[in-house]
Amino acid sequence: MESVIIVAGGSGTRMGASTPKQFLLLNGKPILMHTIEQFYAYNQQISIVLVLPKNQFSNWESLCEEHCFKIKHTTVAGGDARFFSVKNGLDSISGSGLVAIHDGVRPLVSLETISRCFTAAAQKGNAIPVIKPVESVRLQTDNNQSQSINRDHVWLVQTPQVFSTELIKRCYQTPFSPLFTDDASVAEHNGITINLVEGNRENIKITTPMDMAFASAIKV
Amino acid sequence: MESVIIVAGGSGTRMGASTPKQFLLLNGKPILMHTIEQFYAYNQQISIVLVLPKNQFSNWESLCEEHCFKIKHTTVAGGDARFFSVKNGLDSISGSGLVAIHDGVRPLVSLETISRCFTAAAQKGNAIPVIKPVESVRLQTDNNQSQSINRDHVWLVQTPQVFSTELIKRCYQTPFSPLFTDDASVAEHNGITINLVEGNRENIKITTPMDMAFASAIKV
Repeated sequence: MESVIIVAGGSGTRMGASTPKQFLLLNGKPILMHTIEQFYAYNQQISIVLVLPKNQFSNWESLCEEHCFKIKHTTVAGGDARFFSVKNGLDSISGSGLVAIHDGVRPLVSLETISRCFTAAAQKGNAIPVIKPVESVRLQTDNNQSQSINRDHVWLVQTPQVFSTELIKRCYQTPFSPLFTDDASVAEHNGITINLVEGNRENIKITTPMDMAFASAIKV
Repeated sequence: MESVIIVAGGSGTRMGASTPKQFLLLNGKPILMHTIEQFYAYNQQISIVLVLPKNQFSNWESLCEEHCFKIKHTTVAGGDARFFSVKNGLDSISGSGLVAIHDGVRPLVSLETISRCFTAAAQKGNAIPVIKPVESVRLQTDNNQSQSINRDHVWLVQTPQVFSTELIKRCYQTPFSPLFTDDASVAEHNGITINLVEGNRENIKITTPMDMAFASAIKV
């Protein structure tokens, strides 16, 4: 069984809009609907869990009605941090199989990326999509300065991050740490080796008006 | 005295176009002209050196005529790698002062970023613009696996990279290494401590059609 938890627990203040960013319209439709549609397009049988701030449930319902959005999904309340939102999502899933955890504001994930993650995770227990940075990269050094590092050894991490459901549920029993910026870091903290697959470069996290302009330009 | 070397030595094959990417039209005008205009807007007295592949000199001249492009600059032939292109540019500059080295395909650099780099370099001998990654970051480990690192300790490097002219000319006497992905890494190889200032997020390097769509969407 394949599931996806779409995490949209944020209040999205960086967009400078009062609407949470996952609800902003991308080519006439809330970002979040584009995101859900990608997973539905990948597998029409996938079980979809949407994690939203509790106070946005009725807003989301109205939006679904307004946009005639019919893709079946269950809605779960988010927590104070991404970690807790994911945990709530995981708690709502039972049984074995694979679960993808995906940022609600990444509507530009390609079907190929989703497929690569699920395929590799089926073989190895987990897989996350990564890309190489285009830029040179520097790392902070102990003396509070910085040093150039070989960018061939650096990956920028995207979502969906796909895991054996049982495995990731177990990992999320660990206490919260602010260093958990994604699900891979939670799993790794529990001794799991993470498998990398190729992401797609346009699979950005939409967090600023600039990102929105980009997404509008390339999302048909 | 302030100078800028605008490096546009590449053949730009990644755009899937036969035109080198620095000549592709961004809102009706070659990318490179937008880039040069930003430095001219920052300081109308700045000395501008443009590094181009030798076989593109006449093409560039025609483009300047066609687009009535009048900003004064000198043109220098590029080398086989970015390192040699920059070196050729530096060889064409004499005297003291500060020199910015900037990628020709970064037309979205803000005047504030340029100004921050020159101001800090005037005080400290060099400065380069950086941004924090939005994504989680992983580093390759010795056993050919990867490990999550604290992204607060990671910077993605942009241009312009600004240096005391005498200093960077001396650094570029070092033999070429493929690990030199930017000017800071060349300076650092010569024992120089690099100073970081804030870049601007939209200051991307245009290398793919997707980047071009982004730039078109936000460049007025």
